[in-house]
Amino acid sequence: MKTEQSAPLWIYDTTLRDGAQREGISLSVDDKLTIAHQLDKLGIAFIEGGWPGANPKDKQFFQKLQASPLRQAEIVAFCSTRRPHTAVEEDPILQPILESGTRWVTVFGKSWDLHVKTGLKTTLDENLAMIADSVEYLRQQGRRIIYDAEHWFDGYQRNPTYALETVQAAIDAGAEWIVLCDTNGGSLPHEIAESMQAVLQLIADHPTRSARIGIHTHNDSGTAVANALTAVQWGAEMVQGTINGYGERCGNANLCTLIPNLQLKLGYHCVKSEQLTELTSSSRLISELVNLAPDEHAPFVGLSAFAHKGGIHVSAVQRDPQTYEHIDPDTVGNLRRIVISEQSGLSNVLEKAHHCGVALDKQNPVSRQLLQQLKQLEHDGYQFEAAEASFELLLRQALDQRPSLFELHGFDVHCYCGSLEARQQGGFSSTALATVKVVVGVQEILTAAEGNGPVSALDAALRKALVDVYPSIAKFQLTDYKVRILDGKRGTSAKTRVLVESTDGQNRWTTVGVSTNIIGASYQAVAEGIEYGLLRPCFKDSDECPIGIRAILNGQHF
Amino acid sequence: MKTEQSAPLWIYDTTLRDGAQREGISLSVDDKLTIAHQLDKLGIAFIEGGWPGANPKDKQFFQKLQASPLRQAEIVAFCSTRRPHTAVEEDPILQPILESGTRWVTVFGKSWDLHVKTGLKTTLDENLAMIADSVEYLRQQGRRIIYDAEHWFDGYQRNPTYALETVQAAIDAGAEWIVLCDTNGGSLPHEIAESMQAVLQLIADHPTRSARIGIHTHNDSGTAVANALTAVQWGAEMVQGTINGYGERCGNANLCTLIPNLQLKLGYHCVKSEQLTELTSSSRLISELVNLAPDEHAPFVGLSAFAHKGGIHVSAVQRDPQTYEHIDPDTVGNLRRIVISEQSGLSNVLEKAHHCGVALDKQNPVSRQLLQQLKQLEHDGYQFEAAEASFELLLRQALDQRPSLFELHGFDVHCYCGSLEARQQGGFSSTALATVKVVVGVQEILTAAEGNGPVSALDAALRKALVDVYPSIAKFQLTDYKVRILDGKRGTSAKTRVLVESTDGQNRWTTVGVSTNIIGASYQAVAEGIEYGLLRPCFKDSDECPIGIRAILNGQHF
Repeated sequence: MKTEQSAPLWIYDTTLRDGAQREGISLSVDDKLTIAHQLDKLGIAFIEGGWPGANPKDKQFFQKLQASPLRQAEIVAFCSTRRPHTAVEEDPILQPILESGTRWVTVFGKSWDLHVKTGLKTTLDENLAMIADSVEYLRQQGRRIIYDAEHWFDGYQRNPTYALETVQAAIDAGAEWIVLCDTNGGSLPHEIAESMQAVLQLIADHPTRSARIGIHTHNDSGTAVANALTAVQWGAEMVQGTINGYGERCGNANLCTLIPNLQLKLGYHCVKSEQLTELTSSSRLISELVNLAPDEHAPFVGLSAFAHKGGIHVSAVQRDPQTYEHIDPDTVGNLRRIVISEQSGLSNVLEKAHHCGVALDKQNPVSRQLLQQLKQLEHDGYQFEAAEASFELLLRQALDQRPSLFELHGFDVHCYCGSLEARQQGGFSSTALATVKVVVGVQEILTAAEGNGPVSALDAALRKALVDVYPSIAKFQLTDYKVRILDGKRGTSAKTRVLVESTDGQNRWTTVGVSTNIIGASYQAVAEGIEYGLLRPCFKDSDECPIGIRAILNGQHF
Repeated sequence: MKTEQSAPLWIYDTTLRDGAQREGISLSVDDKLTIAHQLDKLGIAFIEGGWPGANPKDKQFFQKLQASPLRQAEIVAFCSTRRPHTAVEEDPILQPILESGTRWVTVFGKSWDLHVKTGLKTTLDENLAMIADSVEYLRQQGRRIIYDAEHWFDGYQRNPTYALETVQAAIDAGAEWIVLCDTNGGSLPHEIAESMQAVLQLIADHPTRSARIGIHTHNDSGTAVANALTAVQWGAEMVQGTINGYGERCGNANLCTLIPNLQLKLGYHCVKSEQLTELTSSSRLISELVNLAPDEHAPFVGLSAFAHKGGIHVSAVQRDPQTYEHIDPDTVGNLRRIVISEQSGLSNVLEKAHHCGVALDKQNPVSRQLLQQLKQLEHDGYQFEAAEASFELLLRQALDQRPSLFELHGFDVHCYCGSLEARQQGGFSSTALATVKVVVGVQEILTAAEGNGPVSALDAALRKALVDVYPSIAKFQLTDYKVRILDGKRGTSAKTRVLVESTDGQNRWTTVGVSTNIIGASYQAVAEGIEYGLLRPCFKDSDECPIGIRAILNGQHF
């Protein structure tokens, strides 16, 4: 790792515009405001808010933002150059930009002759005039201009003379930044380097004006991050990208990867160190807001980015973290995770107990006993890697800290389907009914509920049976459900492992169930999810431990 | 894009060993065999099968592979160097390697002094002896050696002299390949370039032996692909990686990204052009086998890699694909997708029909109609990549060649569990009872069967109902059952996709079902599995077409 230098680097986020192009993302104006404020907190220099001339929602966003302005970030409005053969003052693209009231405007124009001809259907000269007029007009209206050279790398490769003329036009007209865009994402790092040199020369040769270079990459070749790093190493001072790499096709350059690489490895200053520790939580918050599952294997911020399996790795990391970690996870607000698996030894178990806030000792007989139990359960098909709540329940049980909150005395699930028409529609919209008998203390509760599948019916019945005794259950919700058939080669008699993720609105936890019967496995995971949700505040020693459970912990019964 | 050169490049796949380290992947011996054969078909040069000395499952894999050998790929066994102060002939790590019977062996050793001291807890000299002895011993036993220099880049940065000595020891002992490993994934491309030069110099200076260089990268900095490309541009001739980038933490270098970059952009020869067109289907098949959702945004092979959203992009792409596509999706077997208007994909359908032995023509209205139906079904969550039997049933239906063998008029599944004791045992051995009403011709059959789960009960009931009419069902068996929850974030109300693999003892086929109800989805896949098994001999125009079905095909009814 290089030592800290102070060379500043401007991070430009386009999650709200280019990121939102990803299939499946659809942001409300309020979502956009929340994300903008989070990016501001994270220390991002420029935040591109949207294209007010093309999208009425974006127009509203800029209006609303004026009522709750950002603290440090510059908000940027985005637009294309004017239309061919249209006066700038009358152009429907440029006028809404002025109304958005931002100090900075990003104007994008065509660098590639092919796009001028097939896309704009105009002449190469008219495209140069469109760039010059648009930049100059907005500048005369008091705006500072970032010029995005769309398809720069493809254009430069095919017709370098013309591509350079388009950039020259933007500089002449007063653009302060020239951002080279790999719009199709097809470039590799060595091509970025070649192109950078040509633009640097152009700027150096300019008689009067100066401009800085930025880089905007897409990940179609899997090298968006490396391409941006290469550009920086060749002199680019602005990096454009999106949180979690969202963007159309294969996404944009991922700022959650770029920022720590630039700051921790190359020694640039992008954000303050204390802001960098909010990177992981920002990544996860934004993935919640756009309603996409976080990428658990994402560099730096993924749940597995610092996860260690197997005995040798774990004991080496405990002696010296740099043996298997390229950076300290704390610097980006992430955590080391010790994964419990078949290869685990005692050190893994102790480390995991430590994460649950339990200081277990090697000498404590509970440690070995727990290890044996885990190995047996894993042999039976359980998996605690992802099911940390089920692990904690086992740990607490071993320590005699797991009071019995409820006992299942039986369940019965019924799925029926009179499916002639359903089959014709190509699907089975069958219905399920679950009956459960649960005992809490001395009270026996028998109840039933329906669902659109056996597991949702069982979940509903169980919650219905328990909510009167444990009202905090009302807040709980299942958020993810995963099924894996173990030893699938035995067909439908194989064992099934179910993972269930639950939430109370603030925290998330995952539980596991295994059985030859998928309903039995699901029941087990769902029931442990409810149990852990109820016990969690008590484990954390908080005043929030529900009164009913505190009573059980104190030895009182219903 | 550069012009085609013929410089060969050796692709080394480690999905079965390093890839399987990813959290959540657990491969059976049969899964590993299927993957190895798929990689062989794809034209991968070296396939690392596993570490027979560390894992009994891997030992079995090598044994079984001898019964069904690969066509062109070299299968490689993997192991560490011998233990400190142990004779090679007595070392428990090296002996199982010889038994695995492979011609090639990859031996990994420590390059970083820190790991020699804290990991191996031995001296720097003993580590050199361990490398030399292990390589030499295996070579004397007739094996060809690939030496993986673990933690090469970290080691070289901290103690370059020692790191180079470890490589020297491997070359002196006769290793043919030196693979530089970025084990912690922390390196950036410019660091790869520096290190490559030092090793090239070392090899050039060697008085007698020669060796080639390989590269093995991890993605902790988000630059695994770019790091491997940089190494190749500096002279590496072997690239190690995994399908879909599977691997611990943030994964290994993704071969599905590297191969097309190397072959289509840098002009190296990795696999045959016709093998490259199987890249997308191989990626998806392997993601199904490891039961992980495919990454829809993966470069080259992702469902969205060539997806275009409406308007300007779409019309530009239709006029000239290179306006928004960095390569032709056909070259990697992927498809352009127009997200809003339904278009293209016809060639894929024709190709798939051709695989089923049906020569469909572009002009035939059935082709477009089938394409529309597939798009709708895929939109609803179906997936035919792995379920080719379900595809063929749709195809035959479109051609009016799918006689109705039976109709389901309703089912009812009942799971019960009086589970006090079961819970104490930590599992739910609940029982399931299924009732089905099936109509064959004019005959209504009502029957019931038990199973140890709802799906096995349903399968048993269905087979029982039909076996008298279609006796060949007695030979059928379910061999695999996979469940994937689509849109998992909706918890238990999400849609479920079930894949069922069936066999008649000779052939295997896979069918798919989708429903919000897991029982409904399972029924659909199981029923189509039986239907396809019955129709298969008739589709293949064989005398084995059961008489009852031939009667239906001839228009006679029961």
